Amino acid sequence: MPKPRQPSPLAPRTPVPPVAVAGARFATLAAGIRYTGRPDLLLIELEPGSTAAGVFTRSLTAGHPVLWCREALARGLEQGGRARAVIVNAGNANVCRGAEGDAAVAREVAAVQAALDCAAEEVLVASTGVIGERLAVEKIEAAVPALVAGLRADGVDAAARAIMTTDTFAKWASATASIGGKTVTLTGIAKGSGMIAPDMATMLAFAVTDAALPAPVLQTLLNRAADRSFNATTVDGDTSTSDTLLLFATGRAGNAPPRSADDSGLADFVRALDAVMIELAQQVVRDGEGAQKFIEIGVKGALDDAAARRIGLVVANSPLVKTAIAGADANWGRIVMAVGKAGETIDPARLGVAFGGHDVALNGAAVPDLDEAPVAAHLAGSEIIIDITVGDGPGRATVWTCDLTHGYIDINADYRS
Amino acid sequence: MPKPRQPSPLAPRTPVPPVAVAGARFATLAAGIRYTGRPDLLLIELEPGSTAAGVFTRSLTAGHPVLWCREALARGLEQGGRARAVIVNAGNANVCRGAEGDAAVAREVAAVQAALDCAAEEVLVASTGVIGERLAVEKIEAAVPALVAGLRADGVDAAARAIMTTDTFAKWASATASIGGKTVTLTGIAKGSGMIAPDMATMLAFAVTDAALPAPVLQTLLNRAADRSFNATTVDGDTSTSDTLLLFATGRAGNAPPRSADDSGLADFVRALDAVMIELAQQVVRDGEGAQKFIEIGVKGALDDAAARRIGLVVANSPLVKTAIAGADANWGRIVMAVGKAGETIDPARLGVAFGGHDVALNGAAVPDLDEAPVAAHLAGSEIIIDITVGDGPGRATVWTCDLTHGYIDINADYRS
Repeated sequence: MPKPRQPSPLAPRTPVPPVAVAGARFATLAAGIRYTGRPDLLLIELEPGSTAAGVFTRSLTAGHPVLWCREALARGLEQGGRARAVIVNAGNANVCRGAEGDAAVAREVAAVQAALDCAAEEVLVASTGVIGERLAVEKIEAAVPALVAGLRADGVDAAARAIMTTDTFAKWASATASIGGKTVTLTGIAKGSGMIAPDMATMLAFAVTDAALPAPVLQTLLNRAADRSFNATTVDGDTSTSDTLLLFATGRAGNAPPRSADDSGLADFVRALDAVMIELAQQVVRDGEGAQKFIEIGVKGALDDAAARRIGLVVANSPLVKTAIAGADANWGRIVMAVGKAGETIDPARLGVAFGGHDVALNGAAVPDLDEAPVAAHLAGSEIIIDITVGDGPGRATVWTCDLTHGYIDINADYRS
Repeated sequence: MPKPRQPSPLAPRTPVPPVAVAGARFATLAAGIRYTGRPDLLLIELEPGSTAAGVFTRSLTAGHPVLWCREALARGLEQGGRARAVIVNAGNANVCRGAEGDAAVAREVAAVQAALDCAAEEVLVASTGVIGERLAVEKIEAAVPALVAGLRADGVDAAARAIMTTDTFAKWASATASIGGKTVTLTGIAKGSGMIAPDMATMLAFAVTDAALPAPVLQTLLNRAADRSFNATTVDGDTSTSDTLLLFATGRAGNAPPRSADDSGLADFVRALDAVMIELAQQVVRDGEGAQKFIEIGVKGALDDAAARRIGLVVANSPLVKTAIAGADANWGRIVMAVGKAGETIDPARLGVAFGGHDVALNGAAVPDLDEAPVAAHLAGSEIIIDITVGDGPGRATVWTCDLTHGYIDINADYRS
């Protein structure tokens, strides 16, 4: 087992308490799946009639819970896309177990379904932890009655703690917004700290709003928000088999349900959803394994926003860029290198790089007689901003990552037998 | 400046001396471009009538020497694809310098052209080192007469040393083959140890044969060999702005020139060329920054060989796989993760992983009751073999990489101001 990690130096200093959401309840329990002496099982219950949307890993070796969630959401959509619960365990990812893995998910679903008296496809499942080992599903089955008995509305922070693996701090975010004059609340939790730490996999995030949002609308809103948040962050470029982002809408706020995700009355909700998702995604990066510096990379001048994001992620994933930042080194040549390997159309004669707003390269060449002092001062800090110009196209994107340090190696190599 | 590195523990123990090639001569010189007290400039001269072929970085921010080489080879092809020389410096990559960078290359070419009395496009240029700083081209110009005066046939090992940046050992390889009953010789040198070390970029390789090979044939043979060697290796997934692989054929062996790269009489030469290129590419990996283990990854069962290679390279570039191997950890879950993110069609139900020939996962699930002792013994060594089955397709590939250790972080982050 890994040594306990020190809290990340990039953790939020004064976390705001999470806000409860009408129609959602939480329960946690120590089931002893892998960890001892801490909760490792979470049940989120949604009121009957709640809608659900999900975004999942693109991995072609996705875990058994992900396979189920995709199927359940697709199947449930015909009946309005309802969900009643998601059950989550930490310590075992239930991946690569063949028929046994699928059967374990079915047993989890059946246990929750029986306790809540709902349809199978209304029960979603997520797991995070070791890949390839058998999930002790009997412990989860046995725990379900106690979980259901313990459901409470104010359990958000405990919920965030129960799904941690090598996370060094619990992650949550809340926001409010107005839809058609009604105030709606949105709260999310997340876990993740790199793709994984020793054997522990996965980014998981679950969010609930009391807004009334039909499932297809919810799904479109979630897809867009994920693109601007989780899909714009990276710790090490590795993709978990189990990444799961679920958003539930209980409808308790009483707003008139919008017909389309493009309904103008949703603008404020979209802002709040983006804010919560970006906050959760950034917290995952801030808990990146070994991270000492949080890095925001802005890209402009690409052909379109998608190209800009791809360039940003290639830069964010470059071990040489990440180690340079760890070393507080204004090594813009490595950024040029990473931009060059991204495979996107760029204009080398327009290439520019700035650290903390200070240009170091402009129009494809080094800035002559650069005053390095303000650049060095910026890079000595723990919040790094890199702006990259790659041409004069309209495409822009912002992505977030962390530096690559000895801590990453310690966590991923040294602390194993 | 970085601290001098210890020789890589993966360096060849008893290197075979390089073999001279008729029609090729070498000269080196300490020009003081960045380093002091060591040769940093190399001239390789080829007899009149020699042919040339090249493979270059795919980076869209390629260095000024790469831009020239591409143009010179394309232009020269109309006159039979001849080359008389390549001039190489270490310490400055001449990248991102705008018009000044192109002018510097032109001045290098002009100096060599004047000394050897040849066409401009017969002079190729390569540079490795810092990106974005001005190349002291006047030092190179001044050195050309002395380089030409010092040309000698047996300078291969000195040539290999002159192009080193953070390499910890000089890299060369030689082989002989038969073409139509004539014995031909092939010798190559290379430098590189990761994409880069502190500011030092680039994989460079230069090879010469005395075979008579028309330029278009030589280019096809080189493309194929590069695909099986340099394009199947990775240290950190980062792509230099300056990667350059050049192959010259002097024709002195007197074989009848083949008309096509598919001429059956070339089979033995193709074998020898592959052997030299693979040996050079593997030496670059063995000198990977911080490398403690050399990793060979075999992939089978993919849709085709190209898909297999892409999967292999994604596994080879995964920081989590590389740190697991550094920690001698039989963490096949990370390999499954990396296969899953490669984006290639695979069959999860056929997925298999073996370390050193010992199966740990078969048919999409963990091997039950695995005896871990032989796996652990294999992973404790420094030459690691990973075999991955991804389906039952005909595609196969082998790629090579190294582990990711504290040494990589030391070299790329700690040793900078």
